[in-house]
Amino acid sequence: MEVHALDPFFNPRSVAIIGASSDPSKLGGRPIRFLRAAGYAGRIYPINTRSETVQGLQAYPTLADIPGEVDQALIIVPASAAPDALRACIAKGIKAVQVLSSGFAEESEEGRLRQEEMSALAARHGVRLLGPNCLGIVSVRNRYFATFSTALEALVPQPGGISFATQSGAFGSCAYAQAIQRGLGIARIVATGNEADIDVTECIDFLASDPETRVICAAIEGCRDGNRLRRALLKAAAAGKPVILMKVGSSATGQQAAATHTGAIAGDDKIFDVVCRECGAWRAQSIEEMLDIAYVRSQLAEPANDRANIITVSGGIGVLMADDAERHGVAVPAAAPALQARIRGIVPFLVGVNPLDTTAQIGAIKRGIPDLAELVIQETDCATLFLYLAQIPCDPRRFVPLLADLAELRRKYPDRLLVLIGPSDDEMRRQLEAQGLVIFSDPGRAMRAVGALCEIARRRASLHPGLPDPGRRARRPDVAVDPRAGSLNEMQAKRLLSEYGLPVPPEALCRTEAEAVAAAQRLGYPVVAKIVSPDIQHKTEFGGVVLDLADADAVRRAFGALMGKAAALPGSPRIEGVLIAPMIRKGTETILGIHVDPIFGPMVMFGLGGVAVELFRDVAFASVPLSPARAEQLIRSVKASQLLFGWRGRPAQDVGALTRALMGLSDFAQDWAQVLEGVDVNPFVVLDEGAACLDAVVSCNAAS
Amino acid sequence: MEVHALDPFFNPRSVAIIGASSDPSKLGGRPIRFLRAAGYAGRIYPINTRSETVQGLQAYPTLADIPGEVDQALIIVPASAAPDALRACIAKGIKAVQVLSSGFAEESEEGRLRQEEMSALAARHGVRLLGPNCLGIVSVRNRYFATFSTALEALVPQPGGISFATQSGAFGSCAYAQAIQRGLGIARIVATGNEADIDVTECIDFLASDPETRVICAAIEGCRDGNRLRRALLKAAAAGKPVILMKVGSSATGQQAAATHTGAIAGDDKIFDVVCRECGAWRAQSIEEMLDIAYVRSQLAEPANDRANIITVSGGIGVLMADDAERHGVAVPAAAPALQARIRGIVPFLVGVNPLDTTAQIGAIKRGIPDLAELVIQETDCATLFLYLAQIPCDPRRFVPLLADLAELRRKYPDRLLVLIGPSDDEMRRQLEAQGLVIFSDPGRAMRAVGALCEIARRRASLHPGLPDPGRRARRPDVAVDPRAGSLNEMQAKRLLSEYGLPVPPEALCRTEAEAVAAAQRLGYPVVAKIVSPDIQHKTEFGGVVLDLADADAVRRAFGALMGKAAALPGSPRIEGVLIAPMIRKGTETILGIHVDPIFGPMVMFGLGGVAVELFRDVAFASVPLSPARAEQLIRSVKASQLLFGWRGRPAQDVGALTRALMGLSDFAQDWAQVLEGVDVNPFVVLDEGAACLDAVVSCNAAS
Repeated sequence: MEVHALDPFFNPRSVAIIGASSDPSKLGGRPIRFLRAAGYAGRIYPINTRSETVQGLQAYPTLADIPGEVDQALIIVPASAAPDALRACIAKGIKAVQVLSSGFAEESEEGRLRQEEMSALAARHGVRLLGPNCLGIVSVRNRYFATFSTALEALVPQPGGISFATQSGAFGSCAYAQAIQRGLGIARIVATGNEADIDVTECIDFLASDPETRVICAAIEGCRDGNRLRRALLKAAAAGKPVILMKVGSSATGQQAAATHTGAIAGDDKIFDVVCRECGAWRAQSIEEMLDIAYVRSQLAEPANDRANIITVSGGIGVLMADDAERHGVAVPAAAPALQARIRGIVPFLVGVNPLDTTAQIGAIKRGIPDLAELVIQETDCATLFLYLAQIPCDPRRFVPLLADLAELRRKYPDRLLVLIGPSDDEMRRQLEAQGLVIFSDPGRAMRAVGALCEIARRRASLHPGLPDPGRRARRPDVAVDPRAGSLNEMQAKRLLSEYGLPVPPEALCRTEAEAVAAAQRLGYPVVAKIVSPDIQHKTEFGGVVLDLADADAVRRAFGALMGKAAALPGSPRIEGVLIAPMIRKGTETILGIHVDPIFGPMVMFGLGGVAVELFRDVAFASVPLSPARAEQLIRSVKASQLLFGWRGRPAQDVGALTRALMGLSDFAQDWAQVLEGVDVNPFVVLDEGAACLDAVVSCNAAS
Repeated sequence: MEVHALDPFFNPRSVAIIGASSDPSKLGGRPIRFLRAAGYAGRIYPINTRSETVQGLQAYPTLADIPGEVDQALIIVPASAAPDALRACIAKGIKAVQVLSSGFAEESEEGRLRQEEMSALAARHGVRLLGPNCLGIVSVRNRYFATFSTALEALVPQPGGISFATQSGAFGSCAYAQAIQRGLGIARIVATGNEADIDVTECIDFLASDPETRVICAAIEGCRDGNRLRRALLKAAAAGKPVILMKVGSSATGQQAAATHTGAIAGDDKIFDVVCRECGAWRAQSIEEMLDIAYVRSQLAEPANDRANIITVSGGIGVLMADDAERHGVAVPAAAPALQARIRGIVPFLVGVNPLDTTAQIGAIKRGIPDLAELVIQETDCATLFLYLAQIPCDPRRFVPLLADLAELRRKYPDRLLVLIGPSDDEMRRQLEAQGLVIFSDPGRAMRAVGALCEIARRRASLHPGLPDPGRRARRPDVAVDPRAGSLNEMQAKRLLSEYGLPVPPEALCRTEAEAVAAAQRLGYPVVAKIVSPDIQHKTEFGGVVLDLADADAVRRAFGALMGKAAALPGSPRIEGVLIAPMIRKGTETILGIHVDPIFGPMVMFGLGGVAVELFRDVAFASVPLSPARAEQLIRSVKASQLLFGWRGRPAQDVGALTRALMGLSDFAQDWAQVLEGVDVNPFVVLDEGAACLDAVVSCNAAS
């Protein structure tokens, strides 16, 4: 197996600390203290010109004085001295360097230049850099605590399968301090700081193939390369490791704060959401939610389906959990009649069919709960079993036998999720968790975490990479209209799109009244007349479109009025004539488009016309290149698309034609990715049979 | 001050336990054990025919044997013996009786009859009944632990200001077990069980005037009397006590489970939501959310406004909290320039203007955090100050001085909310809370709780009682159309509504083609023609409406077609003719209506026409009687109503006319509350000036 480029950061056999301090409370002293306290088995080389020993370890005046190889160096010197420290690392042949010092791009222009100098230097010599201005790395199982985070003074992480990769060290601290306090088992912690070289994306990529990691918790404030993030998320998905992401800066206020905090581009929040979904990741809204999901997944299997049984000693909590299940996308199917009979054989007074309410009287039945639990595990395929146990976990007399029974169930059915709910004290929680079980005090949080894992599994079953297809033939050379020509008028835009299969009704550009009347007669009344000018993008707004012209007189009047109005516009727009096209009254108006995201590249957009998009933001995006399955998913993810599928007795509309148009737009975006700025097809009318692109704007930068 | 009817349940001087057991682990033994262990100072009278003493207390063979008065009795005997026990209570003159036994309406028809027998008996003798099938009462400060809930075996509640009133005892147990585990201070706990007499609503009413209670947490599965609930919520709002409600059974699945669990009507969920808002209450989605809000409110003041300062030692967490603030309706205003200068006088390296990111270097500044906190408290009017402290609360060296400083701030500024965020252990949390401070480990939960308190304050500032106006004049006697006449046709419905000020355009019911043409000429072309029949409610669906008739020929054709179609309908509907009305093309189509909720009575409905209502459920409800302010709020709470207020350069529409129509509908609903089943005005077109009710259905039951 190939060694990952970041492996020396997490599994070094030796580490040099440049700027090592004898004071264990100082920045340069803490990592040594933490490493020794944790019991790191590798070699620690303090670099210190003034002392022969540092915190009881032999110190070296310079890196060059260290005998033999060094896997990793930590730089904790003032920023101005950091470039020289890096040079020393290069000279020593160290390939993994963490720069914990601050005073770089986050502080000043001078710092930014210093940071660039260091990253260029590192790149030139094949050295990988973490930081600068980062909080370091913790690797729990090998006791590698190379950080100065004070979180570790009060809180000692237990080994386990959850890893953290965050840009902000303080954000990471907040997350893993909570995790440690909850007793969650941790594999790796890394904060990337200014990301002069290594970023969170690359850390996700490392963790996806890290055998110690079962769940990846990541927080980013901006993303610089959408496709690298996609690849890292897809790699984790392929490895069966949920990536739970927090993107800080989703609201307007938050984005302002994000701009203050880092120089990274915050990116469009909705697009980030789409990419997470497509690549099988989960976006959490709070640290607590992130940890809840990680907790369940690191203890239990991945849910094989989104169905659950609920056993509860309280009907009220059962109702609450059924509500929560619906909210979080977990199905709670009723027990089959035969099973119901067997259930009542165990608990005669049980109420309901799922949730199964044993009532508090269950205490009267010996082994009532474990027998009932095993029965529903055996007789249904529901992947998850929730057990609301009220006060039982707090009552030692009842807890001890129950724990043994549940642990036995866990061993017997390792592919099922057993999620306990009830109050517990720390000691009982630890005992449960030692048996591979989980417990939540709040039923809503338990359901939210399981619901997220179900959704992650669904996403993983329909991944949409959204990565450029390397085998794709070169750009279509023979298009009638070259987008690089610069601004296109409506006709040119439609002609171009028609070459990608978008249906454009016949139409004629007319320079005289007579031409317009002739065209109308040829196309058949009623017709529509529109001004054509490369300089007018929003013709509707100044009245540049006249609908529903019923006869030659109306066409003549419209022609005259349009030419007159256009000529009177300020700035003397170039007027190319009037477009005459058939009037299409039927069908459902939709909006198609291509949004070119600066981070994630071209995205196909779909929505329905009118208030659905404008008021309710009922639009959806999908990454280019689209697949037919993803196109269908895209259409269905728009709420108003119900109108296309035979709404209230209306005939169903030609969704196939719509799908083909979306695929065509995706092809178009791939071919012209280098110059494309955006496409709006509005309206795109979907008919009972076929569809019609009635207006289109294609924006390109003519530069390349 | 008047004594509340439920006072003897919570503050009895003596209690008799009917069915008292010498075994302290049995149902009949536990209350005695709990009362004694807690140190209840009143008299406890065990009733037991077989022993002279029970758990060391003198026992009595019957109630009659007890010397002197008894304030309250607990019945814990088999259901079949419960009616006799109640009779004995009546004979003894006991006015407050808890029936903890089960075996009543929740179990069988026989049980239901037994329950009815007992409630009738109690009512006849002026005795109040809690239960049956309930978990009892806990009153913490007076140590009255009259329950058999095993939650109290492992968990001992601390005295404080949070009270719980739940229908389901097990639900309550789950909630207060969590509360006790978190160390929250509790005043009262009551579970109402089958609610033969006392229900959760009455408990809220009691708690609203209970001096021990600062926050009311309530859970109901159904509500039997909407106006009583309104009054209880309004009473709590007037007393400045937030009511945090959970209504179990909001989803489809949940409602099924609710139907299994209790016989109460689950009620329409959206209407319940509206009533909570109108009456100043908060509806929580999870027990955890409920407790978080109660926690903040019971420790701190009510936020005087929804503005907050955020001081954070981490920029990343600041961004996250700014996001959360936006999501939860908390404003985070930037510090004014003069304040910014003073802030930097204290912390020169501080980043941002709010959130204020001190960075981790704040540790280098003595009293940095408290000085900065006091400055923003003094210099802004933001009611809340969030302090993200990272690991500080876990580090004793830094925690002790900080605690003293924060406690001092709390004393100096008792009207400000100081909300700490960071990891803490139980001991440090207790020390903070003893000083009237709060701490959350998760920033999102802190913001959600404060956001809810801000919203509760906003709701309290614009309460809408929705209670019948007792001073209202009697029903209008002189209406042209009597709704009690039974089914009304479109013309009658519109005429009736026009008497309540709804604008109805002129129109004519025509029985012949010639009448139709004459009417059209009088009204002016174009016109619309509609079939009129008391037997056809959905005329559009069979083509019973023809729009946009431009001349006499078109009117003739339409008349013939409509009469022909209607005559061909199955069931031989009565045809009264064809309605000719002017065609109104302009304006914005809206939908008005009255929904008569079985629990909460008539509600005015408002939405915009088309997909907004049908696809996006963008409708809102308000309780009758409407006030002009509530009508405006109702309109604005509909997202699509933006279209009325000058959307994208269109002229603003006559919202005044719309408001008057909504007020008219409210009047109408009040006058005809006894017979009204519902009103649909669809479409109601709002014009640039005025409005027009184009179609209306009024449904009444002719019975009364």
